[in-house]
Amino acid sequence: MSGASSVVLERVISALREVLGDDGVRTGDAIPAHAMTDWTGYTPTRPAALLLPRSTDEVARALALCNEAGVHVVPQGGMTGLAGGAIAAADEIALSLARFAGIDEIDMASATMTVRAGTTLQVAQEAASAAGFELGLDLGARGSCQIGGNLATNAGGNRVIQSGTARDQVLGLEAVLASGAVLSSMTKMTKNNTGYDLKQLFIGSEGTLGIITRAVLRLHPPRGIRHTALVALDDYDAAVKLLRTLSARFGNDIGAFEIMWPDFFGFGVALTAQARSPFAQAHPLYALIEHAGLDTNDQGEAFFAALAHALDTGLVRDAILAQSVADARALWAVRECTAEFPSRMDPVNFDVSLPIGSIGEFVDKCRAALDARWPSNRSYYFGHIGDSNLHVTVDGRSVPDVAHEDIYAFVYDMLQPYGGSVSAEHGIGLLKRAYLPLSRSPDELAAMRAIKAALDPKGVLNPGKVI
Amino acid sequence: MSGASSVVLERVISALREVLGDDGVRTGDAIPAHAMTDWTGYTPTRPAALLLPRSTDEVARALALCNEAGVHVVPQGGMTGLAGGAIAAADEIALSLARFAGIDEIDMASATMTVRAGTTLQVAQEAASAAGFELGLDLGARGSCQIGGNLATNAGGNRVIQSGTARDQVLGLEAVLASGAVLSSMTKMTKNNTGYDLKQLFIGSEGTLGIITRAVLRLHPPRGIRHTALVALDDYDAAVKLLRTLSARFGNDIGAFEIMWPDFFGFGVALTAQARSPFAQAHPLYALIEHAGLDTNDQGEAFFAALAHALDTGLVRDAILAQSVADARALWAVRECTAEFPSRMDPVNFDVSLPIGSIGEFVDKCRAALDARWPSNRSYYFGHIGDSNLHVTVDGRSVPDVAHEDIYAFVYDMLQPYGGSVSAEHGIGLLKRAYLPLSRSPDELAAMRAIKAALDPKGVLNPGKVI
Repeated sequence: MSGASSVVLERVISALREVLGDDGVRTGDAIPAHAMTDWTGYTPTRPAALLLPRSTDEVARALALCNEAGVHVVPQGGMTGLAGGAIAAADEIALSLARFAGIDEIDMASATMTVRAGTTLQVAQEAASAAGFELGLDLGARGSCQIGGNLATNAGGNRVIQSGTARDQVLGLEAVLASGAVLSSMTKMTKNNTGYDLKQLFIGSEGTLGIITRAVLRLHPPRGIRHTALVALDDYDAAVKLLRTLSARFGNDIGAFEIMWPDFFGFGVALTAQARSPFAQAHPLYALIEHAGLDTNDQGEAFFAALAHALDTGLVRDAILAQSVADARALWAVRECTAEFPSRMDPVNFDVSLPIGSIGEFVDKCRAALDARWPSNRSYYFGHIGDSNLHVTVDGRSVPDVAHEDIYAFVYDMLQPYGGSVSAEHGIGLLKRAYLPLSRSPDELAAMRAIKAALDPKGVLNPGKVI
Repeated sequence: MSGASSVVLERVISALREVLGDDGVRTGDAIPAHAMTDWTGYTPTRPAALLLPRSTDEVARALALCNEAGVHVVPQGGMTGLAGGAIAAADEIALSLARFAGIDEIDMASATMTVRAGTTLQVAQEAASAAGFELGLDLGARGSCQIGGNLATNAGGNRVIQSGTARDQVLGLEAVLASGAVLSSMTKMTKNNTGYDLKQLFIGSEGTLGIITRAVLRLHPPRGIRHTALVALDDYDAAVKLLRTLSARFGNDIGAFEIMWPDFFGFGVALTAQARSPFAQAHPLYALIEHAGLDTNDQGEAFFAALAHALDTGLVRDAILAQSVADARALWAVRECTAEFPSRMDPVNFDVSLPIGSIGEFVDKCRAALDARWPSNRSYYFGHIGDSNLHVTVDGRSVPDVAHEDIYAFVYDMLQPYGGSVSAEHGIGLLKRAYLPLSRSPDELAAMRAIKAALDPKGVLNPGKVI
């Protein structure tokens, strides 16, 4: 990014010290390594400064100064992103809410939590739990990622099939525009039709329209009782039929519906303690299913009975029902082999979404096309199909002479006939900006630019990301 | 509104006839009465023309012509609105999607419906039902209101506690900007993080940013099994405690939680066939509660057992459990006395929202303040408290010398200390525009105006509404 000159930067940094104090403005070696890159693996870059405001007002005053001088500001959360959306260039200023953390209030009557953006997801989850509720959001990075980043990227994660994405958790939001204007819509109400729903613009816009400082989140009744099953299926159509059958019976008590294709399943099984499949024979498709009922309403027996019925009618070929927490963990271990991907292959990862009915056909076509194009390639497929989300991983080691960029372009191109999305949950950031036009039309991109120009006329907020 | 001159209007209307055909452009007596006002009761006004496009492309071409000439366009749905948001002035052109109606597709695997904006809610509901699903949206005007209007106003209605508002039903949306640019994001995916979520801007913006032409709506598993109870409570705190207890036990199987204060309850009871309360004595507060479980998972016994337990522990004072559909209808008849309001009083209606925990206190303060200000006044209160929504009605006949405007201002002012909203579900339109600053800050209003200017620079779409 072509940001401000070093003279301008130095002047602004000096003015920022007046506002935030020396402790609130880090430069040089005082900038910690984790502020230099995210989990995408981009080469670390040290920003010109790292700001650590302690209040919404400090964010507002800092942004006003930067905006006035035309200095670029890159908002940072826990730096666990997977698209490079929070990486600041050497002539840009990073702004972290790490010192504006904590729960302002839990309102038991409204079932809401008022939380500051720098709070880690795990701290928010624990506070919800202590109050007898559950947060609707959960993801692997919970210990590091922050609520502000979760909302700015509209994070998905483990509970989307049950509670929706990060967006669906938000009742109220406070965000600071580039100008320093504070838009504080910290409402606790489900219904509120008073003009444009501005919060929706900031959620999922990856810090390009404003910096989220606080939020009011919905709290859900707790679900602690989990029942887990691994089933074998004839084909993808059977998987969809089973999903619909279980949804009609249990609604959003179905807490996970993870489909694994044989290559993925085999990879996962090989890494488990037993190193072999829990089934006696191989099957065309596998589903890991979790029933996560309300704590006061255990329907585990009904869930297992429904699966037994599906076995009787031939909708599923075989089923393993976890009888203990240890059983359940062993079944989840297969699906969670993805954690081993980085150490056992050179993963080229795709986080795409397609209409649920098309995912099976897409996997077949994608595998066939990859095999035809690069016969030595190994590819792996699993999907949160209830969320219309498919993860594809190609092992770069299996095609050592192929640039990752070529693999990205090849797979993303295949999405277009299905109206698929190049980013289901990770966002666009830097990583997928070139592919955004595959999912959004020129008119949509023009509308996005018009909104960006309306809210950040000087283009100082996270420039070069998303659009 | 100060729109285009009659010369310009005539020229544009003539050009519109070229695009839409004579049948698609109505003027003078050919404009039906229902296009002249809505259910708010504003004095009917005949617009300069009523456009009836038959496709998204026709909407786009018509808007481009009007925008070019600076002619104001007012989008109209079923004209059942309660805020005057779809009323066109004499020098404006109304545009109805009534001829662009019908279901394009029901996708069984995705559990989605692709529907045209002019489709009535009831037609969409019936199509969902025929496919074995349920639409998440239901409201009294279902036979007349249209999906486009439902989305443009982010309608609430009867199922918000269970399925959310209209906004929560939308996966994909197509809207036409004033320029004629078509933003078609007709995605069926739950997860889709590819840049700004533009559809959110059009939902709830009452036709001021674009005209919604089509949508992809989520479908839900059907809930046909309903169990109804009327309970008597000590006070508002008990009502909230009961709501949280039942939510923790049954989640979103709780389909209605309607709180009625004694004046309202007494008014409703007096109009029923028996004309007396089903309870032997009077109580401080009443709750009408519905359990609407999934068709394949009847938990009626568990619901009634939970209420029996609440009776045993003293959380509720008394309870009547409907044993038949006729019983349930008799209980609902009390709550639905609102349908009789227009014929039995001169209703000054409020549709406000507040944090759930504050509604009880607000009702007490509001009643006391009204009684102090206008001792002869009669006021009535009931609320969908699970949605944070309270309806207040003051009978204008009880204060014949008081202007309705004065009553509006008096009650809306009382919301501010609670961070309440002047419109929970009906929207702003013309009716509440003057009160919008009570719920939104100057910075929020400025951001809305900036977005309006970015997407509709000539200000031709529904001008003077909302902002």
